[in-house]
Amino acid sequence: MNLDHTHDPAAQSWVESANAADADFPLQNLPYGLFRRAGHNESLRAGVAIGEFILDLKLAAAAGRWDTPVRVQLQALANGDMNGFMAAPPATRRAVRHALFDALAAGSSQQAALQACLVAQSVVEMAVPCRIGDYTDFYTGIHHATTVGKLFRPDNPLLPNYKWVPIGYHGRSSSIGVDGMDVRRPWGQLKPPQAEVPALAPSQRLDYELELGVFVASGNPLGEPIPMARADEHLFGVCLLNDWSARDVQAWEYQPLGPFLAKNFATTISPWIVTMEALEPFRCAFAHPAEDPAPLPYLDSEKNRAEGGYAIELEVWLQTATMRAAGEPAVRLMRSNFGSSAYWTLAQMLTHHASNGCNLQPGDLLGTGTQSGAAAEESGSLLELSDGGKRPLTLPNAEARTFLQDGDTVTLKAFAQRGDARRIGFGACSGTILAARQA
Amino acid sequence: MNLDHTHDPAAQSWVESANAADADFPLQNLPYGLFRRAGHNESLRAGVAIGEFILDLKLAAAAGRWDTPVRVQLQALANGDMNGFMAAPPATRRAVRHALFDALAAGSSQQAALQACLVAQSVVEMAVPCRIGDYTDFYTGIHHATTVGKLFRPDNPLLPNYKWVPIGYHGRSSSIGVDGMDVRRPWGQLKPPQAEVPALAPSQRLDYELELGVFVASGNPLGEPIPMARADEHLFGVCLLNDWSARDVQAWEYQPLGPFLAKNFATTISPWIVTMEALEPFRCAFAHPAEDPAPLPYLDSEKNRAEGGYAIELEVWLQTATMRAAGEPAVRLMRSNFGSSAYWTLAQMLTHHASNGCNLQPGDLLGTGTQSGAAAEESGSLLELSDGGKRPLTLPNAEARTFLQDGDTVTLKAFAQRGDARRIGFGACSGTILAARQA
Repeated sequence: MNLDHTHDPAAQSWVESANAADADFPLQNLPYGLFRRAGHNESLRAGVAIGEFILDLKLAAAAGRWDTPVRVQLQALANGDMNGFMAAPPATRRAVRHALFDALAAGSSQQAALQACLVAQSVVEMAVPCRIGDYTDFYTGIHHATTVGKLFRPDNPLLPNYKWVPIGYHGRSSSIGVDGMDVRRPWGQLKPPQAEVPALAPSQRLDYELELGVFVASGNPLGEPIPMARADEHLFGVCLLNDWSARDVQAWEYQPLGPFLAKNFATTISPWIVTMEALEPFRCAFAHPAEDPAPLPYLDSEKNRAEGGYAIELEVWLQTATMRAAGEPAVRLMRSNFGSSAYWTLAQMLTHHASNGCNLQPGDLLGTGTQSGAAAEESGSLLELSDGGKRPLTLPNAEARTFLQDGDTVTLKAFAQRGDARRIGFGACSGTILAARQA
Repeated sequence: MNLDHTHDPAAQSWVESANAADADFPLQNLPYGLFRRAGHNESLRAGVAIGEFILDLKLAAAAGRWDTPVRVQLQALANGDMNGFMAAPPATRRAVRHALFDALAAGSSQQAALQACLVAQSVVEMAVPCRIGDYTDFYTGIHHATTVGKLFRPDNPLLPNYKWVPIGYHGRSSSIGVDGMDVRRPWGQLKPPQAEVPALAPSQRLDYELELGVFVASGNPLGEPIPMARADEHLFGVCLLNDWSARDVQAWEYQPLGPFLAKNFATTISPWIVTMEALEPFRCAFAHPAEDPAPLPYLDSEKNRAEGGYAIELEVWLQTATMRAAGEPAVRLMRSNFGSSAYWTLAQMLTHHASNGCNLQPGDLLGTGTQSGAAAEESGSLLELSDGGKRPLTLPNAEARTFLQDGDTVTLKAFAQRGDARRIGFGACSGTILAARQA
């Protein structure tokens, strides 16, 4: 691990709300996002979340005192060029983190100048935080893969390639949105097993999937792989990702080329990118099960084994329309931990992706796949929690759910927590199901 | 069909080379592309191919006389903004075609002014013609799907969904390049049937796939489908597409989520976009086989049945390193016709893609999948031509091929031809295999 004073758990900010014990965005976090003031017709600008505020980097670039290399980066960010910043060398990204940390730390001489650069998170609209050229979704959750595999292929749940290949596929970039988005129930070809022919109808088995996403920092030229030894420097940061899925569409369409319309109608991410620097204290051992085949050499490294994992707690919350109308809060459906649910690390995902020379670019997004724990109640999708729709969940208000109903709001949450480190959060990743479009 | 004077087969250009009987780019074609002068460090600009030249739209926007709506479009194109032009309404796109046609027609009063705006194609570098936000590849070639299905799944060649669902999957945008690109042989996990465990090695079963690609014109908002009745107006134009494929990687990785590293190391397209307006005379009936289930209503329309097809001849040519060294020209490996090889039309691909509300955007690229004819010798890939690698092809110089060797140059060609219409070509789509990267 590469810890420094920005990871000091005792460090406090002059932004008071950042010091609350349950704050997602304490001084040690400093995630990046793109925002505009709600209702203002202004272009997107970059900011850093601190407590309940955002440090507006357009204002801060001008108002603060910054060393030249940091000022250059802040000025690019001020114009909303997140991708340019993502492409910067790791040392530059680290220098910007250090400068922002020092400027926002309690006692900083920059407090007076930067106070005026704070915007309350409650008055902004967040946007997809960068230009996502390509979005790839992996399938690293081995408990999810096994459980879902049983539903789709009872005889053959975990395919023979699973423990060798970090399975992934290309997803849809255009339909990625952020926390707070509405998701219209999609129509699709449905063919229940007993039906003779398919019919176009609104999906009846609409589901969420609890995932993390990792953004690519600098890329690689076409034809040149990224070895494990250099994978970490090509990772920029992590967000929550909900891979909304229409299970009935998926079951009928997915062979032989994989999911398509079952998943590309919407993907929701949390708008704040928690940087790899902020996640450094949460690295953990990534023990490949001793009884399984060792990863092929191109996917193996001592560092990956020692600290390729990240201890990130994951949660799914649900608030139905009925609950909302009654003023009842959301209920938590499950918890799991990325450190123990993923069979492959973020570094292995990236290195595998580039192993054939495929060129990754700054801002590309790699999803981890659904992160379910080993126990049934730790499942990251309703498909698993309801055993393929056969066992409805009963909610505290006595409503039942197999799959999502119109008006349901699904919220993903995550926080990194380990040892003495200051706990950091990811903010929310929520979406609400709208009724299907009229025929 | 919507024919006008720009489809007059007798029309001639004052650019002499456009009038040759075998010209790919006669006056009736006028495809768009992005280029820069080779070796010049200039930004990309849009051009229109005419004979052996390009009308440089940056120069032509300034030098020619144009009605205001046309000039507005040409000025955007002059700055390389192809996507903006793609988003323009069909009537605007048609107006620009008419203006360029009239200006380049023999006897035009603009000849003197525009003569200086011509650049020889021999001195330019072409680029990917627009920003491709998302690239989707379909699987409409039913003969290909059947033959390949037999190789991967002998008991179950054509899956039950094939005649209902226009099967497609998301591809990789970042690795799309144009005619003339080098393709480095990828490494990948290979596990021959007799091997106990996989190993990372250069692909030994490297293949091409003969496809067309169609670019999206204006898009649709997230959540709003595009009905068949409006599909045509959302199509901009067509190019050739080579979906390079590593068959050995594909066989091991593709279940359950589809092809990934087997295909995302490179895709090559022809740099000129032949517009839907230019293809209008080549529309043909698209008879769904009477013995097959009728398309579901959302994929059916009278217009689609009457003229949803396009009569486009397709060819694959191969020149090996040995042939090149001996000064021998490329040999043609096959011919097929898009009008009879595709089970789904371009309009059906687009409408199906948006049927769940997935938002398409200007410049998105939809591949058709491999277009093989019914006969074995009309196959659009080596996998099919060599019967899964079991029957090597013998080339005229006595070389044998099952799959591609280092130094092989594969060139796709296409031309639209029907009735009395002036034949138009697509230009070349070639790529050369480089040896795998050293370990």
